[in-house]
Amino acid sequence: MVKEYNPYLEYVKDELFLEGVSLRELAEKYGTPLYVYSASYIRDRLREYRESFPGALICYAVKANFNPHIVSLMAGEGAGADIVSGGELYVALMAGVNPSRIVYAGVGKTVKELVEAIKADILMFNVESRMELEILNQLGEQLGKKVRISIRVNPHVDPKTHPYIATGMKKSKFGIDIDRAEEEYRYALSMKNIQVVGVHCHIGSQILDTSPYVEAVSKVVDLYRSLEDQGIELQYLDIGGGLGIKYKPEDRALTPMELSSALSPILQKVKATVVLEPGRSLVGNAGVLITQVQFVKDKGEKHFVIVDAGMNDLIRPAIYDAYHHILPVVKRGRPSIVTDVVGPICETGDFLAKDRQLEEVGRGDYLAVLSAGAYGFAMSSHYNVRPRACEVLVDRGYVRVIREREDYQYILSKSS
Amino acid sequence: MVKEYNPYLEYVKDELFLEGVSLRELAEKYGTPLYVYSASYIRDRLREYRESFPGALICYAVKANFNPHIVSLMAGEGAGADIVSGGELYVALMAGVNPSRIVYAGVGKTVKELVEAIKADILMFNVESRMELEILNQLGEQLGKKVRISIRVNPHVDPKTHPYIATGMKKSKFGIDIDRAEEEYRYALSMKNIQVVGVHCHIGSQILDTSPYVEAVSKVVDLYRSLEDQGIELQYLDIGGGLGIKYKPEDRALTPMELSSALSPILQKVKATVVLEPGRSLVGNAGVLITQVQFVKDKGEKHFVIVDAGMNDLIRPAIYDAYHHILPVVKRGRPSIVTDVVGPICETGDFLAKDRQLEEVGRGDYLAVLSAGAYGFAMSSHYNVRPRACEVLVDRGYVRVIREREDYQYILSKSS
Ligand SMILES: Cc1ncc(COP(=O)(O)O)c(C=O)c1O
Ligand SMILES: Cc1ncc(COP(=O)(O)O)c(C=O)c1O
Repeated sequence: MVKEYNPYLEYVKDELFLEGVSLRELAEKYGTPLYVYSASYIRDRLREYRESFPGALICYAVKANFNPHIVSLMAGEGAGADIVSGGELYVALMAGVNPSRIVYAGVGKTVKELVEAIKADILMFNVESRMELEILNQLGEQLGKKVRISIRVNPHVDPKTHPYIATGMKKSKFGIDIDRAEEEYRYALSMKNIQVVGVHCHIGSQILDTSPYVEAVSKVVDLYRSLEDQGIELQYLDIGGGLGIKYKPEDRALTPMELSSALSPILQKVKATVVLEPGRSLVGNAGVLITQVQFVKDKGEKHFVIVDAGMNDLIRPAIYDAYHHILPVVKRGRPSIVTDVVGPICETGDFLAKDRQLEEVGRGDYLAVLSAGAYGFAMSSHYNVRPRACEVLVDRGYVRVIREREDYQYILSKSS
Repeated sequence: MVKEYNPYLEYVKDELFLEGVSLRELAEKYGTPLYVYSASYIRDRLREYRESFPGALICYAVKANFNPHIVSLMAGEGAGADIVSGGELYVALMAGVNPSRIVYAGVGKTVKELVEAIKADILMFNVESRMELEILNQLGEQLGKKVRISIRVNPHVDPKTHPYIATGMKKSKFGIDIDRAEEEYRYALSMKNIQVVGVHCHIGSQILDTSPYVEAVSKVVDLYRSLEDQGIELQYLDIGGGLGIKYKPEDRALTPMELSSALSPILQKVKATVVLEPGRSLVGNAGVLITQVQFVKDKGEKHFVIVDAGMNDLIRPAIYDAYHHILPVVKRGRPSIVTDVVGPICETGDFLAKDRQLEEVGRGDYLAVLSAGAYGFAMSSHYNVRPRACEVLVDRGYVRVIREREDYQYILSKSS
């Protein structure tokens, strides 16, 4: 069952290993809370995307996990980057991503960020509003560059996921309504410093079914062909990210191959290069968060396991009511109990699991929180003045610290 | 109406000022997003607490806003600190809080944190479980110190607030059930290295009504008197924090004086020193978050104002569905519209206000997000590789940067 999350994750004599490395040993050496990522898993997923979508450009969505070593690993395998801010551009460039493989979406790009990205000569801006188009045209003029753009269209599709991560619905802030897109294309084509190169959509995240993709991509391809009929040829068809991963034991991830099969009848009609922007599906199950039990509290009707990872380390349960599977790092064969797994933070929203069946644990035991590689560290904070976790990358038995544990000085260094 | 949030906040010729300082000028000088706090407001609130509870010890709950300059301002006025971690202990000490005024609650205190606090000789640990008591006793032995403790009791009271910040209900992870408290007191009294000094409760946050306090404190006082009858005298009765502030225009804050009046018949029976742990009510309405409009997007049935502050800067709307009042920094007398105010982050959860009536704004305009001084910056993150905001303190016309704006290097400095 464990291997269904990550084939490099396994119990060896009751102890949990990731890519041949004992998670207990890592926790003892580097302390907890500790994020551990599996490099081979990430490479495998990238390969799977490449094999499922031959000829496509795979742009890793940096937002899922912005550790530069993770991004650099992707770059080394030829991946591009999907970015949403100047900070992510900075990370992508420093990690060695080729600017000709960087795409930049985002509803609130600032002038400073736009300028940085134009200067870096990225592949294309996924433009989210007419105002952005106008500003890009002006900046292109000022900088003496033709700015490559796609229009991010909103296809009005319900991805059947958490409302916070549904991004292509009619009332969403993202993109330009698909029925107004042609008009915007004509407007963009009239601009001197804009080069229209593609179309973009991203309908949401943690999508476990192909049907919303089929619906959205069909609409986008209709648009593409209608533009083609008008003599407007787009080179890129960017279908975003969003593939869902296994969180609950009963979940089945949506694989790139399944998506490809579902979309190929539609994409066949298109000459453009397909662009994908996977985030969660590349790194989500690459990572586990190791935490140590601090206290155990039995209140009769309610049992609590209090660990040293809090909502500042992993906010997904609090914000999306997300499920993360939790396993003992060392199985002791004790009877199982039903418990909440909670953190040390000062509020009730600070939980990792509720009413969860778990092997009984005691003070000092380590727990592995699965599927923590995406939107885990990336959303972490200093709430309660808690230094953020250390991040470690394991690669075929080789271990590397890719982010040191923070200390109090780091948190306060900007307020001296 | 503005003054009901903060008497130092006012429009002068259609421009919003805080303590005599133009928020437009601050935004132009320091950039946005920008947190601005009013020092006089904080001093006034502290004084109000002191006058409402003469003889009480006021321990500022550092979790609400951990900027050391804010904590230091409190310390200068004689306040103590309520802490929940080693990091908060560090901040409190560096800000000059007298250790004899520090109280330390928290369900997951680590050994490292407990040792730091014992060595610092803080006033008392608010103990949340029997296991913690036993560890403190051991550490006291090792360090040759008698450790002062209160027991945090869970009084089973519904504070009628957001479930994430209700902390004294039966199924909460916090404290020791009040009906089991006497037993724990007797156990604590039997320990060689423990000195029992008080009782603690904290039932939740953003409480707008005195009745849950009356209910909780009555139960705690019953416990206190029953212990007294057994010859156990407690020196401190810590009733926690939690007073609610004005967020919505129709909200009325619960004032310290109202709380004091409601509790005085109960507290009269008690010889112990009362301890209070206010957080939100000291700093919440001291602070505003200034943000700049980047884009305006009209989708027909839905209008969006896209600003440069995101859920990484202020997560309260996303996590608690919290309301924050929003005002134009410069009133232009334009007609009002109904709009969402959203940030630049890649998800739909990134909003500051939904369907809000607001004077029409345009690109470049500044907005002030009110009531942002508590659980604002303190919960901020680097999501989307966004450097965190600058923090400024205004004090009777005098302006001081109390935290510099972060840069990309800062975010990545631990992962080189
Ligand atoms: C434009 C865009 N592309 C790609 C992604 C990545 O999505 P996922 O991590 O679900 O693959 C996101 C996520 O927010 C996004 O907004
Ligand atoms: C133990 C304790 N005391 C005090 C507070 C401060 O609460 P408030 O900010 O509502 O005053 C909190 C908040 O979480 C707390 O947990």
